[in-house]
Formats: sequence, C-alpha cells, structure tokens
Amino acid sequence: MTAHPDTTANTADSTDPKTLTFPGRPRIAIVGSGALGSYYGARLAQHGQDVRFLMRSDLEHVREHGLDVRSHAGDFQLPQVQAFGSTEEIGPCDLVIISLKTTANAALTRLLPPLLHPGTVVLTLQNGLGNEEFLATLHPARQVLGGVCFVCINRLSPGVISHTAEGDIALGEFSGPALPRTRAIGAMLEAAGIPCRVSDSLAAVRWRKLVWNIPFNGLAITGGGITTDLILQDPALAKAVRGLMEEAIGAAAALGHPLPDGWADIQINRTPAMGAYRPSSMIDFVEGREVEVEAIWGEPCRRAQSAGASSGRMEMLYWMIQSAVARRQAGAGNGG
Amino acid sequence: MTAHPDTTANTADSTDPKTLTFPGRPRIAIVGSGALGSYYGARLAQHGQDVRFLMRSDLEHVREHGLDVRSHAGDFQLPQVQAFGSTEEIGPCDLVIISLKTTANAALTRLLPPLLHPGTVVLTLQNGLGNEEFLATLHPARQVLGGVCFVCINRLSPGVISHTAEGDIALGEFSGPALPRTRAIGAMLEAAGIPCRVSDSLAAVRWRKLVWNIPFNGLAITGGGITTDLILQDPALAKAVRGLMEEAIGAAAALGHPLPDGWADIQINRTPAMGAYRPSSMIDFVEGREVEVEAIWGEPCRRAQSAGASSGRMEMLYWMIQSAVARRQAGAGNGG
Repeated sequence: MTAHPDTTANTADSTDPKTLTFPGRPRIAIVGSGALGSYYGARLAQHGQDVRFLMRSDLEHVREHGLDVRSHAGDFQLPQVQAFGSTEEIGPCDLVIISLKTTANAALTRLLPPLLHPGTVVLTLQNGLGNEEFLATLHPARQVLGGVCFVCINRLSPGVISHTAEGDIALGEFSGPALPRTRAIGAMLEAAGIPCRVSDSLAAVRWRKLVWNIPFNGLAITGGGITTDLILQDPALAKAVRGLMEEAIGAAAALGHPLPDGWADIQINRTPAMGAYRPSSMIDFVEGREVEVEAIWGEPCRRAQSAGASSGRMEMLYWMIQSAVARRQAGAGNGG
Repeated sequence: MTAHPDTTANTADSTDPKTLTFPGRPRIAIVGSGALGSYYGARLAQHGQDVRFLMRSDLEHVREHGLDVRSHAGDFQLPQVQAFGSTEEIGPCDLVIISLKTTANAALTRLLPPLLHPGTVVLTLQNGLGNEEFLATLHPARQVLGGVCFVCINRLSPGVISHTAEGDIALGEFSGPALPRTRAIGAMLEAAGIPCRVSDSLAAVRWRKLVWNIPFNGLAITGGGITTDLILQDPALAKAVRGLMEEAIGAAAALGHPLPDGWADIQINRTPAMGAYRPSSMIDFVEGREVEVEAIWGEPCRRAQSAGASSGRMEMLYWMIQSAVARRQAGAGNGG
C-alpha cells in the first residue's frame, strides 16, 4: 500500500491515471447499508478504517447499538459506528463504496455529489452489468472502479448481518487495466480481512459471476422461491442451469472476455456446498422487494445480442422473471 | 371423391402411391375418443360415415346415450354410436384416425395392428412433431397421413363435447406431396362439415400450428395455468410469445419449411378473439393429466438444433415446462 498523507483530496494524482495512488487512511463512505455494504464496511471499520455509513431504515438502531456481524470466519461487534442519514452529513470522501440495490441507482444522482471531490474513487460492489456506466455519467469514468463480490450474506435484523460463506472481492478499473491505486485499494481490503483479487478486466470478472447468478438467481425466482439445492435436484432445471451458463460463457467470449475452460462445471460444482441457499434476488422476490432484473438479466441479454451471441435462453428467463415480478407486484397469482 | 366399392381392403391401389385412391364409404376407426376424436368422429358419423370409436372411460355412457356435440356452428346429437372397448372388436379399417394423446403413443404398438389391412390409411390428428415417424414404425410410411387441427374443443362430461371455435384441418401425406387419396379424404371431411385444406407439405403445416402452440400452451403452463388473454396482457409474456414465435419460424425455415410473411403477427392477432382461452396442454397440466411435452416442445427443440437454428428460447421453455410437470407430479409446490 502506498504511504500517503490522510487527506480528503487526491486531486493531483487523479490527473494522470498511470500514477494514480490512494490515500493511506482514506475517508470511506458506504452508500447503501444493506447486508453487503454493512458487512464490507464493518470489516473495514473493524480494521481501523474511517468508514461512514449512509443508512436509512437501520439508522437509529445502528447509532444506538452499532453493527453485529455473525460470520463463519468469526463473529465480531462494532458498538460504535459512524452512521449518517444523508450524504451531506458525510461530506467528501476518498473512496465511495456503492452497495445500493441497482434498482435504486437513480437516487445516486442526488446522493453521490456531496461525497465527491475530484480525486474521489467510486467503487461499485453492485450486481450485474451497467452500474459502472451509470456512475461514469456522475463522475469521471477513470475514477470509477467495480468490485465483484463472491459472498453469502444476509441481514438478519437491523444492524445484524449473517455472513455464511466466501467473502472475496474481485476488483478492477472500469476504464482499463489495474492501476497502482487499484492495488492499493485491494491491499486495504486484504488488510481488513477481505480476500481481494485485482483484475485487469472488470468485465471478465463480472461475467464470471453472472455465469452463476443468471441461472441460480433466475430459476430460484421463476420456481416461486426455490433454493439452489432444489434447482440442482430437478433434472430439467439442472439442464437449464448448464444451458444458461453455456450461453452466458458464449456471450462473454463474444464480448472479448473468454472465461476459463470448464467454468460452467466449476460454477455448478461449487454450488452444493452452499446447501439450501437462497440467492439474494430470490429473497428480494419472495419478500416483496425490488428485484435487480435489468442488471442481472436485462443488460447481459442486450450485450449478448449486441455481440451477436446466442441469448435465447437468457432472454426467455428475463421475460419470465419480468412477468413473475409484475404478477407479484399486482398481488395476484392469476393461477387457474 | 373417387367412387369405390365399400371394402375393407384397398391393397391393389396401395402398391402405387401415385394412383392411391380411397374407398367411397370407408370403414373408419377413431383411436382415442377424447374431445378431438369424439368431435371429428361425430361430424363424420353425422354425415353418414361408418365410424367406430375406440373408447375407454366413456364407453358405457356413450353406448347408452351416444354423443352430444355443443357446437358454435350448431349443436347436434348422435343417439346411436358405434363404440368399442378394443380394437380387436373394431377390426380392420380403411381409415384409422389417431387422436390419442401423444404421451400414450406407446399403446399404439398394441392398439393399431387389429385395425390394419395393407391398404389402411393411418391419419394422425395428434399435436406436435414425431407422431408420423412413430406410426411409420408400425405401418408403411406411405400409408401414414397427418392432419393439423385448428379447433377449440373441450370434453365437458362423458360423451359431451363443447366446440367453441374454428374446426378446420390441414391434411398432408407424411412421405411426400398430396396424392389423389389425400384429396379424397379431404373431400370426405369437407362433406362432413369439417373445413379441410390439403397441403403438399405436412411438416410446414405442423410448424404453422406449433408457432402458436409453443408459446401459448407453454406459457399457460409455466404461468401456473393462465389463459391466453392474460398472457397477451402481460407485457413481458407478450414479448416472450413473439420471441418464441420468431424462433419457431426461424427453425421451420432452417428445416426447409418457410412460413408465410408476417406469420407471427397473424398468429398473435387471431388470439384475442379466443377470449380467456385455456390451451389444451394447460388444461392437462392443471387437471393433473399427462402433458404432451415432447411432441410440442422437446421434438421441435431437437429439430431446430439439428438444423443449426436458434432454439434457446424454446429450450428454456421446454426445461421450465418439464420442471413444472415434475413438480406437479411430485405434488409439491416447493415454494419458499
């Protein structure tokens, strides 16, 4: 990690992407303190970083009781947490971690500006495709990073996070290969107990994760809220999982992001160890919350089409998820 | 129609497909007296044809009360019907009309032989693809015909058939273009009040119908038993309908059966007039009966693949229908 004075501005370095570095003890904002933002923010705060959480529903509870992380890697509590109700109160930061639901992205137009200075690095840990592009409409593209999280977490109650498996992040620059500051941020995450891999191709790691998320999150929804073990136990859905994975892998390759050989097998084979896992989108679906339909299915379909890759399986799943969400929102089963 | 003595054998003509004719008053067997077989058999019997129905569950009722057809084109009753419990009792026929559910095709290995003489014409009115091929394993291929039925019918109770719309049949030879006997059979159907079009390409008319059945029967099932009007009112499912139709049209073209321009629009536009229509496969699904999964989805997928055509949307739907049927049979919702 580069030694760097603690400052809220990093303007000089930001003019030359090649030499971009990162402050040694950055001021960090977590925008979107659901399970994901709370978990990673808590890890950073646990290891002494200056982390400021933007909170909404959990604000009063966390101000009073802090955060409680129940992790398979060891539980920990943070009795004192810097929790805020607005980004104006947080003010300019060096690193803004976006962990909002992608369906709430429009709110960033309002939430983000108070957090920005010219050298601010904006790191989205959000799901799926299209988020870096959106952030690049609000802040210079070369200041945007993406992180792909491989982690099983749930919010149990206000301020209480369950971390049941994995936890690593694959980190990359939106506008090119890794920079010194990418490695500095990666090192900071590693030092906070977050296994971190820095990648020269963010798009490739996004597709790596989508190969799992597209089928499992999707079929868990269209199945009415089924867990990943039941998906794999159903012979037809197991075929659908593989078929969707092969299509996503083909799309990634057509877009210039060839995935490792045997990636579908690797992704299928790592799933049974998760047990009766409820993918995040499925939980959103059954609990009546917004589902990240465009980031996980819509945008990958559109990119596959734009590259001339086969996308029929993904398209069909996308339409069926849209329909399931619309019918849920209409509050009707329409069953007959 | 050719004048021909009433005979149970037509052997001489059957040796030369070019000159094949058909007896003027053939002995006709209906194998599978559900709604479809009962309706078309009743029409033929109403117009004086010698029609012998193979019946199972409705046998005693129909022997006692006959058939009662409630048709949008005018109700009619047949108090006396030739109903049999076995094909041995029926004996050799000139025309065997197969209207069994395709999922029961294996039973034809046993049911068909007593009905056959060398000149017997076997006409399948079954859904989907693969039925003529199967019949050609039991009887010479050049004696096999297919008819594609465009008809809205339901069995209301034993011996009582509701005919709510359409009713025409597109007729073709399995092994080549139309023959004189194809036209003779078509003329016989026409004379019985069944609008009939003789086609030189049975495969093309099968695909024409599949363009409607694949999306509407399929989405009605995966939607948990929804009617065609609700499918078209759901914007995502309406997109899925069109997407599936375009894929089926592309598959047909790749297989050498180009469909008319604008066929997807024609098929979509004729649907609202059906009202809250319940496709036959959806009724089978919700009423716990066998669903014709392979004939309507499995075989079209495999043929599309064999021709190198896009089939991802159809494949995905096929997998989801298989899963829905398996879950229904397991008697479990598995919902979460």
